[in-house]
Amino acid sequence: MKTTILIHCTDRSGIINAVTGYIHRKEGNVIYLDQHVDKEANVFFMRLESDFEKEDFSIQDFENGFQTELADSYGMEWSIHQAVPKPKMALFVSKYNHCLYDLLSRYHSGELEVEIPFIISNHNDLRPIAEQFDLPYHHIPVTKDSKKEAENKQLELLKVNGVDFIVLARYMQIVSPRIIDEYPNKIINIHHSFLPAFAGAKPYHAAFERGVKIIGATSHYVTEELDAGPIIEQDVTAVSHTHSIKDFIAKGRDLEKIVLARAVKLHVRRKTMVYNNKTVIFS
Amino acid sequence: MKTTILIHCTDRSGIINAVTGYIHRKEGNVIYLDQHVDKEANVFFMRLESDFEKEDFSIQDFENGFQTELADSYGMEWSIHQAVPKPKMALFVSKYNHCLYDLLSRYHSGELEVEIPFIISNHNDLRPIAEQFDLPYHHIPVTKDSKKEAENKQLELLKVNGVDFIVLARYMQIVSPRIIDEYPNKIINIHHSFLPAFAGAKPYHAAFERGVKIIGATSHYVTEELDAGPIIEQDVTAVSHTHSIKDFIAKGRDLEKIVLARAVKLHVRRKTMVYNNKTVIFS
Amino acid sequence: MKTTILIHCTDRSGIINAVTGYIHRKEGNVIYLDQHVDKEANVFFMRLESDFEKEDFSIQDFENGFQTELADSYGMEWSIHQAVPKPKMALFVSKYNHCLYDLLSRYHSGELEVEIPFIISNHNDLRPIAEQFDLPYHHIPVTKDSKKEAENKQLELLKVNGVDFIVLARYMQIVSPRIIDEYPNKIINIHHSFLPAFAGAKPYHAAFERGVKIIGATSHYVTEELDAGPIIEQDVTAVSHTHSIKDFIAKGRDLEKIVLARAVKLHVRRKTMVYNNKTVIFS
Amino acid sequence: MKTTILIHCTDRSGIINAVTGYIHRKEGNVIYLDQHVDKEANVFFMRLESDFEKEDFSIQDFENGFQTELADSYGMEWSIHQAVPKPKMALFVSKYNHCLYDLLSRYHSGELEVEIPFIISNHNDLRPIAEQFDLPYHHIPVTKDSKKEAENKQLELLKVNGVDFIVLARYMQIVSPRIIDEYPNKIINIHHSFLPAFAGAKPYHAAFERGVKIIGATSHYVTEELDAGPIIEQDVTAVSHTHSIKDFIAKGRDLEKIVLARAVKLHVRRKTMVYNNKTVIFS
Repeated sequence: MKTTILIHCTDRSGIINAVTGYIHRKEGNVIYLDQHVDKEANVFFMRLESDFEKEDFSIQDFENGFQTELADSYGMEWSIHQAVPKPKMALFVSKYNHCLYDLLSRYHSGELEVEIPFIISNHNDLRPIAEQFDLPYHHIPVTKDSKKEAENKQLELLKVNGVDFIVLARYMQIVSPRIIDEYPNKIINIHHSFLPAFAGAKPYHAAFERGVKIIGATSHYVTEELDAGPIIEQDVTAVSHTHSIKDFIAKGRDLEKIVLARAVKLHVRRKTMVYNNKTVIFS
Repeated sequence: MKTTILIHCTDRSGIINAVTGYIHRKEGNVIYLDQHVDKEANVFFMRLESDFEKEDFSIQDFENGFQTELADSYGMEWSIHQAVPKPKMALFVSKYNHCLYDLLSRYHSGELEVEIPFIISNHNDLRPIAEQFDLPYHHIPVTKDSKKEAENKQLELLKVNGVDFIVLARYMQIVSPRIIDEYPNKIINIHHSFLPAFAGAKPYHAAFERGVKIIGATSHYVTEELDAGPIIEQDVTAVSHTHSIKDFIAKGRDLEKIVLARAVKLHVRRKTMVYNNKTVIFS
Repeated sequence: MKTTILIHCTDRSGIINAVTGYIHRKEGNVIYLDQHVDKEANVFFMRLESDFEKEDFSIQDFENGFQTELADSYGMEWSIHQAVPKPKMALFVSKYNHCLYDLLSRYHSGELEVEIPFIISNHNDLRPIAEQFDLPYHHIPVTKDSKKEAENKQLELLKVNGVDFIVLARYMQIVSPRIIDEYPNKIINIHHSFLPAFAGAKPYHAAFERGVKIIGATSHYVTEELDAGPIIEQDVTAVSHTHSIKDFIAKGRDLEKIVLARAVKLHVRRKTMVYNNKTVIFS
Repeated sequence: MKTTILIHCTDRSGIINAVTGYIHRKEGNVIYLDQHVDKEANVFFMRLESDFEKEDFSIQDFENGFQTELADSYGMEWSIHQAVPKPKMALFVSKYNHCLYDLLSRYHSGELEVEIPFIISNHNDLRPIAEQFDLPYHHIPVTKDSKKEAENKQLELLKVNGVDFIVLARYMQIVSPRIIDEYPNKIINIHHSFLPAFAGAKPYHAAFERGVKIIGATSHYVTEELDAGPIIEQDVTAVSHTHSIKDFIAKGRDLEKIVLARAVKLHVRRKTMVYNNKTVIFS
């Protein structure tokens, strides 16, 4: 059985040895170990891919032992994840189709190891793409008055379908705190600027106005503060005075697609850990 | 005689033809023409490299004719520059030596087509480097009380030496409006962040705190508003959770050196034009 | 009427003035002019976007005058292109779907200003994607024996549909000289390496074997020599020892998509000129 | 005592646990562990930074125990390195000064944790820079006839000064196999192309000729096959048809400086391991 273990705790001597020793005693083989110490915060992070080949291996038994033998004494927060089943990813979109097309193409090609139970949108525009890819599309309009009701519908769909994480593929609405609370560090947004520059609306216009020579895109986990959550991935591309705002937007689309797809993959492979509103991204 | 002509004016039909026709009548050859129209502002920009081989070519005569035949009727702001003599570049530094070393190495190798009449610093620390490269070093301390006096000394040195433009090679003092007024779009600063993110002090610390995945450096013309002048050049490099603030600073040094050197070269080759607090950078 | 004019000829004095003067006399307005001189080859290149607003403007008349008044005396090779109708782009694919998905998504979103009359493939695998996007899909298998016949079918489809240019979106067959001759500098290929490194088959395997730290993709016009045609666009991404060949391939897919799409856009906007097996790419 | 341990051996289960357990028993604290498995070659690599605070800690004792308890049974090749004293780096140069200036500036600023006992050159041109930085400069001309004698002089200087590794900062001579044998994976070269493209002489000319849109620089360990050793670091920069060969060279200089400096730092921090003519670069 292939597993991924994520651990963080206050740093101290002997943790690696203790954890690898425990896995060894459970007849597991550490295939990959990545570790990091945030020296400012004095926090230890570790990600282990381990393989347990023993036929009667019990994950319940492993968890119990790990908790009492290690986690309790080291004060660890930790989790163990099996490779199957694939996590369920809900997509929220509005009117822009480039990130949706990109993610669905990757999904369809088997590049993304997820299930997509449905797409939610506050508009009907992208329904044809959902149909192209044979996926359920829920049109949930959001107005001032319908906001609460819309949230209820969204939450119900998420719950009924057992959604594991949410991807905002250029969803142009603010996600409610109720949903953020249900999915802490499990909602991935793509912002069309090199954050923290140009947070908020119309970043390409602001970048053009400022006369920057490079534009960017940022994928981050959604927190209650707008565009201020832990950054997962960023990328940039050069621009010049020859580019109009329209050119910025067109160049930006390619950045957004790539940066969002990379972030989704990192999340799916459990290569991200969040601490102090920052991410550790394992290699 | 090799010349560079820079022009900007309200856009209208026929400008390129009018200008190239005038140069042709003066028996000049247009070696390179680069042109840009800012459609939002409706402004036309042009840079021409022209060669006048006629022995009795008079630049005074050319200027007079250009002004009356073209500039007046098109409402042009324009300038013509000869390739020689080399412009005089003053260097302002504080305690960091990496940009100074980089610029002086390039200068010494003949890579920068400038004269460096002197280095000004508010500290004495980098004097040995000036001596290494055999350049005058003026230590002008800046305190609250001595600020006015320091400016006077700086201005006098600039004037006496006929300085054409100033490079702030990690100069850690705010340049006074009096000097900025004397050198409009002629003071080049290097800021150690990807502006407009992290303007002001300690940008690497702020970038580390925010958990960005890319850091940058920005070279810009100095205006009265801090770190808000027209951007000449920017570049970035990837960072990760494995990098400490110290690593950010070390990686940033290389960015700062390169970005500042590129901006200086663009300025020296008269490839920059400033309009609406933005730059046009000709290729 | 919006037009794009492309010119190249031996460099000499007065060309810009002569061309802009002619356009001016025809009551055209030069909206954008980009010009380049290859000093080694002594060749002058120019691209002009011009607008002719006169109601009775005749392109035939313009062409005749241009040829006799300018092109003949300067020895110019030149062409004038109208913005409409959109050029017709044929797609050749094999089994990889990422470039096809990417181009069709852009096409469907109106990002590519082309018509796509059909897709040709030597396999049947990607037919469902053609159906998703409602495009004709012609399965033309290529074997040693059927090669000639396959070419005939391809050529006929190209001719009947009035195809202007061809995009090989990871087409895994060598295009025959007969087709290359019919479409000189009009067949765009994407090669999955940073050419000239790793030309030929299995470039990601070769890159992995060599232990490079950066991989790339190259879009180029197809010539008879394999992977040696004029390069239109290249891009790269960092890799490390932690990446397997499978990772190289996955990272490379994103490069290939972006690089091919950029090259197609440059071609469609007539921003490319070919000379001495190299490209001039106008901005 | 701060140490860095480098290990590689055939991959098998339990290695991490065995090594960290041994360090733990010796009362050491693993500060940083980075590990990699080359699945194709089935080789395990590990780099550990460990701190041994015990006053009576004996490195000799540690080494003996490690060898008999671990290395022998796992078939490990391994080494342990103390942080002090700084390694001794010899510089070989010819006529280009940019890499030399860059390295000496970093050295002088304390950025490079090395000693530089001397500079060797086959020309006298760069002696003034050595004098600027107060370093011994040995002019050892290399001609067909004097080659053997030159090597002898070089080897003697290396030996007498206890040199640990050699940096070829644009040294335009082929290093003899005798020296390569003495310094296996300890001679760092900078090649001015994106290897394996444009190996050999005049890579910028070849890149210009081919019409590439990106140029690069590559730092690698020197092996007997020219420009074919294990790659440590690469970087690239965009070029276009507007750039002449001279521009390629100027842009390339900045790449060369940065790429070589990064490689030197990686080597000094013992973050490189070589296997199968490839490098593992620890983070």
